[in-house]
Amino acid sequence: MSQPIANTVTSPGKPAAVPGISRFVDLVADKLLATEAVFRHHLDSDVPFIHQAGDYITKGGGKRVRPALLLLAARLLGHDGDEEVTYGAVIELIHTATLIHDDIIDHASLRRGQATLNNLWGNNLTVLLGDWIYTKAMQMALSHGQIEVVRRLCDATLKMTEGELLAFQRLGVIDLSVDEYFAIIDRKTAHLFAAACSIPTLIQPLRPDAAPFLDRYGRALGICFQLVDDLLDFTARESELGKPVLSDLKEGKLTLPLILLLPRVRPDERKLIATVLEDRSFSRVSAQEILDLVHAEGTLDEVREMAEGWASRARQELAFFPACDARDALEVAPDFVLHRRS
Amino acid sequence: MSQPIANTVTSPGKPAAVPGISRFVDLVADKLLATEAVFRHHLDSDVPFIHQAGDYITKGGGKRVRPALLLLAARLLGHDGDEEVTYGAVIELIHTATLIHDDIIDHASLRRGQATLNNLWGNNLTVLLGDWIYTKAMQMALSHGQIEVVRRLCDATLKMTEGELLAFQRLGVIDLSVDEYFAIIDRKTAHLFAAACSIPTLIQPLRPDAAPFLDRYGRALGICFQLVDDLLDFTARESELGKPVLSDLKEGKLTLPLILLLPRVRPDERKLIATVLEDRSFSRVSAQEILDLVHAEGTLDEVREMAEGWASRARQELAFFPACDARDALEVAPDFVLHRRS
Repeated sequence: MSQPIANTVTSPGKPAAVPGISRFVDLVADKLLATEAVFRHHLDSDVPFIHQAGDYITKGGGKRVRPALLLLAARLLGHDGDEEVTYGAVIELIHTATLIHDDIIDHASLRRGQATLNNLWGNNLTVLLGDWIYTKAMQMALSHGQIEVVRRLCDATLKMTEGELLAFQRLGVIDLSVDEYFAIIDRKTAHLFAAACSIPTLIQPLRPDAAPFLDRYGRALGICFQLVDDLLDFTARESELGKPVLSDLKEGKLTLPLILLLPRVRPDERKLIATVLEDRSFSRVSAQEILDLVHAEGTLDEVREMAEGWASRARQELAFFPACDARDALEVAPDFVLHRRS
Repeated sequence: MSQPIANTVTSPGKPAAVPGISRFVDLVADKLLATEAVFRHHLDSDVPFIHQAGDYITKGGGKRVRPALLLLAARLLGHDGDEEVTYGAVIELIHTATLIHDDIIDHASLRRGQATLNNLWGNNLTVLLGDWIYTKAMQMALSHGQIEVVRRLCDATLKMTEGELLAFQRLGVIDLSVDEYFAIIDRKTAHLFAAACSIPTLIQPLRPDAAPFLDRYGRALGICFQLVDDLLDFTARESELGKPVLSDLKEGKLTLPLILLLPRVRPDERKLIATVLEDRSFSRVSAQEILDLVHAEGTLDEVREMAEGWASRARQELAFFPACDARDALEVAPDFVLHRRS
């Protein structure tokens, strides 16, 4: 997907894959476009490389799920100012900086169908660019003087980095437990989703009563999102995903479909997975052999059911809020997350 | 130097190299120790790697020049609270994160006489650790609710990263101009010094009247510091510097002593420098050949004079303030910067 959600999901010529999903962003389409403009505007500097890379990043697009959630949560609380647009851009910048540094670590050469920044400009410039974007995001977040929002963003960013560190240290490990897996994805993904959804409760007029519900909504949705992400690595076509399938295993990352499968298979089947983890390539074992194993054991379906469970948990939190268009959209968001193809 | 300044410069058994230099930190020795404790305390997490790396970083020490300047400027303005201790630790954490990412970029294996983090733990963990420390510093800076201070820190960090980006893009270039060199060191080094010195004007009671003087003081001192840093790469002994001499040239970095020298030398002498820049090693040209050239042209003395000029500029700004012990110490700080050996 090479376009922001506002353009992709709602564009007339391209019907959404699942009916109703377009409603998820329709309500905040204008604000999402404003967020995109703020995102682009601030991804710039008089340092020529930053300008150039900023263009490239913006053109690369992304699903803009986090800003969409932030804008919807703001609407749910009756906010209609500029702050949520700024914070939407900020949260997408933080997410962008993380992806940029992740791609260095994963030695990734493709993301969303285009060359990664590290692939184009090398690791060194890319490390510095990620640093610059993180700091720029914090600088922008400070612009409305709401210090609690900046605190929330720092806390979420720290958790995210800790998740990445934990994940990196368990790379190539075949006995990663289900608990460890969830501890990693909670930090790596769910906390930033929770921040996106609950930041509007920190905008004046403050809504501390709503904070725990939106926080839990975002966290459950974030876990759902990561489970689906990990599923897509097995099920998506490369043309849809914008990167090779089974990338995770090749990078040494054991995800839930394989973690659930490992205790149930024969030693020789276990060996297939161990070999890919060891080789970090499909030179001795083919991707198809791994896919056949996963399909035979049915763990993809189990993980999908778990993702649906987290989607339900997210939806339940919305009962706290009176019925309104924004609540409807937030109820549809988990479907978008579950049915997305990239 | 493997110990914080408070211990090294003022320790009774180790007389300071230049009389009076110890006065630079004596006044704030207690607060500098408190800063060190805050620095160590916050460089920690329940992620085991962060704890381990935090220990290693703290043991590695550093000159702690930036926190010392911040604490002295706070004393100059009559502040005596906890904020300056926090901000001292914050500014040292930001500086630390920068060094950690720089060492990756420079492929450095030694800093302050001990193995760099990238050397010990590899680039990937080190990228994430740097990200974590930057964010932790911002989180700490937010703790006193003084948003202007956090803004100042973000601005300085952005400038610093831009300086690194500009420097990296001019790596290996033999025709780097004097203007370009100063534009780089101003962003890379001087802005963080200026932030350290002027942040106390943003602590209650605010002192906007003092801000431009302390800002210019810090900026001039920062440029002086970087000129001396670049000189030390030619003049220091490896045992003092904690890293090999002539590292800069080997890394492709042209610094002022060579920039001034190049237009004056014969083509065959120019070729010597070009060869090292090209090879990124002293395999075809020895370090001694380069040192002989620099000594023959006397550009080290010229750069030292320029550094002394910036030291004077810094001192002049202090005339704005009434005479007091903190002003005396800030007047001595440029001597410390000029005469330091590492």
